[in-house]
Amino acid sequence: MLVRGAHLLTMQGEGVGYVADGAVVVDRGRIVAVGAWAELAGEYEAEQVIEAPHHAVLPGLIDAHMHMHLALLRGLAQDTRNWMLYGVGPFVPHLTAEARLAGSKLAVVEALKAGTTTFGEYGPQLEETCRFMAEAGVRAQVTGFIREVPQEMSGFGPRDLYPFDPNLGEKTLAENIALFEQWHGAADGRLRVLFGPQGPDFLSRELLLRVKEVARERGTLLHVHTAQGERETIQIEGRYGTRPVAFLDSIGYLDEQLLVVHLTDATEEEAALVAQRGARMILCSGSIGIIDGIVPPARAFREAGGLVALGSDQAPGNNCHNLFNEMKLTALFNKIRARNPEVFPAWQVLRMATIEGARTIGLGDEVGSLEPGKQADLITVDLRHPALSPIYTEPMRNIVPNLVYSARGNEVDTVVVDGRVLVERGRVLTVDEASIVAEAQQHAEFVGRRAIESFQAVGGPNARWQAEGRL
Amino acid sequence: MLVRGAHLLTMQGEGVGYVADGAVVVDRGRIVAVGAWAELAGEYEAEQVIEAPHHAVLPGLIDAHMHMHLALLRGLAQDTRNWMLYGVGPFVPHLTAEARLAGSKLAVVEALKAGTTTFGEYGPQLEETCRFMAEAGVRAQVTGFIREVPQEMSGFGPRDLYPFDPNLGEKTLAENIALFEQWHGAADGRLRVLFGPQGPDFLSRELLLRVKEVARERGTLLHVHTAQGERETIQIEGRYGTRPVAFLDSIGYLDEQLLVVHLTDATEEEAALVAQRGARMILCSGSIGIIDGIVPPARAFREAGGLVALGSDQAPGNNCHNLFNEMKLTALFNKIRARNPEVFPAWQVLRMATIEGARTIGLGDEVGSLEPGKQADLITVDLRHPALSPIYTEPMRNIVPNLVYSARGNEVDTVVVDGRVLVERGRVLTVDEASIVAEAQQHAEFVGRRAIESFQAVGGPNARWQAEGRL
Repeated sequence: MLVRGAHLLTMQGEGVGYVADGAVVVDRGRIVAVGAWAELAGEYEAEQVIEAPHHAVLPGLIDAHMHMHLALLRGLAQDTRNWMLYGVGPFVPHLTAEARLAGSKLAVVEALKAGTTTFGEYGPQLEETCRFMAEAGVRAQVTGFIREVPQEMSGFGPRDLYPFDPNLGEKTLAENIALFEQWHGAADGRLRVLFGPQGPDFLSRELLLRVKEVARERGTLLHVHTAQGERETIQIEGRYGTRPVAFLDSIGYLDEQLLVVHLTDATEEEAALVAQRGARMILCSGSIGIIDGIVPPARAFREAGGLVALGSDQAPGNNCHNLFNEMKLTALFNKIRARNPEVFPAWQVLRMATIEGARTIGLGDEVGSLEPGKQADLITVDLRHPALSPIYTEPMRNIVPNLVYSARGNEVDTVVVDGRVLVERGRVLTVDEASIVAEAQQHAEFVGRRAIESFQAVGGPNARWQAEGRL
Repeated sequence: MLVRGAHLLTMQGEGVGYVADGAVVVDRGRIVAVGAWAELAGEYEAEQVIEAPHHAVLPGLIDAHMHMHLALLRGLAQDTRNWMLYGVGPFVPHLTAEARLAGSKLAVVEALKAGTTTFGEYGPQLEETCRFMAEAGVRAQVTGFIREVPQEMSGFGPRDLYPFDPNLGEKTLAENIALFEQWHGAADGRLRVLFGPQGPDFLSRELLLRVKEVARERGTLLHVHTAQGERETIQIEGRYGTRPVAFLDSIGYLDEQLLVVHLTDATEEEAALVAQRGARMILCSGSIGIIDGIVPPARAFREAGGLVALGSDQAPGNNCHNLFNEMKLTALFNKIRARNPEVFPAWQVLRMATIEGARTIGLGDEVGSLEPGKQADLITVDLRHPALSPIYTEPMRNIVPNLVYSARGNEVDTVVVDGRVLVERGRVLTVDEASIVAEAQQHAEFVGRRAIESFQAVGGPNARWQAEGRL
């Protein structure tokens, strides 16, 4: 396969690796050459040519942290404090396994059409989701939930320490191991499995350490929600007399095996410490902005030498799976946090969504840039859309700023993963979008009816607004 | 004309005025009835029926503040301090009248496709832009620049008071009057003209007061950049010994005739004072976020009883004209400013983009909601897109949150202004999108070549990044 593009953003080197009128040559799913079309055209005979004459061609985008099944609850859990209780609380108990799978399919289609090629899914019971992603042709790095704290927590006061249920811990660890054994390296290596202690407050110290050892033996990473907020801090302080980051440091958790997600509640000093220890960060700007009204200390993390990937988290509270959205919000939120328009420039957040994201999640040798030897995960973006016009190549190129600050995702034309075309002219080829949307709708109607009572009983802001005709 | 929609958001009353399976009946450009389809179907014979069976139908969106001609410079002026100098500075002198018009056409098409029906354009030499907007069929409220400070300010130190050139003041006021005489009420009343003292620092007190009188005699509004930042504050303090808001208050400028835009640099107390005096605010979240890293005090303004409209400002520094973008950013930025996820809920920002926006800019009796007697400005949004799925109607409707937090603008299907269909299935009918994009591209290539020297001479962050291969 040969992809010819007017504007290649290879993401090689320290910048964006721009090549005018460039070509990417792909053989059996891997990139064999990248360079100027004029130099490569004569050297290769392609069976399949993708012409992108008024497009940017760039690596597929990496969404490092998602809870895709919750897409079935899109739009039900924003504009409220206590997201767990008032937001998703009334709905989650009514999600059947089929409804969760329908939500995951919806999220895959949504994100794939917007250029996401690597899916950092984190959730319960992922077998069917893995099967679907294998079929859809995407790349995924999935993480199972490991926890000892029961889902049902009614009756516990805000300062009571969570009870630990060792059987639940064993069960969820065993599930994550089974997931690893079945899916790690599956689908021609497109699927990988990580281990997911849900948060430092959700497992005993002993189980945290055991999971780390289990993952280490298998040569894979840990993916842990860390410093998510006051609730977590209260638990860790109550149990260990210290804050979450210091606790994880004290048990030797902060190292290159660890992906921490969120750091919502971390100070800049704590973020810097995590980075200095070699752990990597996943930043979910849209989600944390909408759920907490907070911009996590990603700038301090990066300035301490840390690597940062972006994540869309979940649709109820974000409310979309779209890396273009995450890039723009990440740049703007951090400018606002710093009150400085020069921080988080466009090219830097585009790197977080591609090469820096890939390195963050341990796929830096496989994807994230267009260079020989890497998997052929790439997207083409049609720049003739009014919102991406006009194009300047001198005195400065405006393509990267326009991709970050003006593209909406619908300008993605073609999506290729492992050398296979998954999306063509904006249409998904490998799975049936219309039936996935219809299936999600059916499940939503069921869940909605079942949740009437719990929604009214919980009575959050959305219940009030619904009653007042504001929704 | 009859529009039948699965989900009507009429924006009547204090909420969103939801009607399931509703209809809007339009006669000669005006809405004559709104209600349940079952009740209206038998009563009217429609020549034209727009079916929106899996859509939301809502009022056209109002973009209250734009500098559309700058769309020709999209993507050239972000990620930098001193936006005037390092951002647009090297490029603006090379914009010909034709290039500015090409940029304005591009912005109209971009915004129209994303559901904007009322355009709050603010710029120099707007005659041709008015002609184009009349042809495109959109509604517009245009403002001429009135200023006494010359464009060319080299040689002035940061604390030197600007010189005033009374001739320039007379000339720009005369142009605004001529614009008013030619275009106010033109195109079947779709075009209106406001008066635009560029900012309190750009005119003498005498001319500010004269412009107010000129506008008052003509029964139209003033539209003024206010509290834009340190530069303005220095000027006003140096000249009058007080800050911009207090100065405007001291000369009786803060009243219902006034639209203030930005308030970037205003305190919450100053914002509240402006609101209490009856002046209205236009909030440009994306633009001020990207240019200044600041969230203006719109919450304080609203809590003091003020009305707020949204504006996209300009493409170099935002970088798009898309009210869906503005709605999401406005909600999230204000949650972050307040560190409270409950402020600026989805329904509230949707009101700012529709009925509250209309009232803000003096069009509250004409547009902004779907109700009998108003002009038929409406849009349909296809909710079957994965990013807007699934739809819940019980126990709460998720349509408004999904429009604000997940829609990207490309889901807009049909756009109607004054009862005329301007966009159908996402395609603009009244002007030729492809030739507008091509024309903008031609002008951009010319401007780019001409700006090489000034871009290098100014040497801002983008010049460095271009040299380093980061763009």
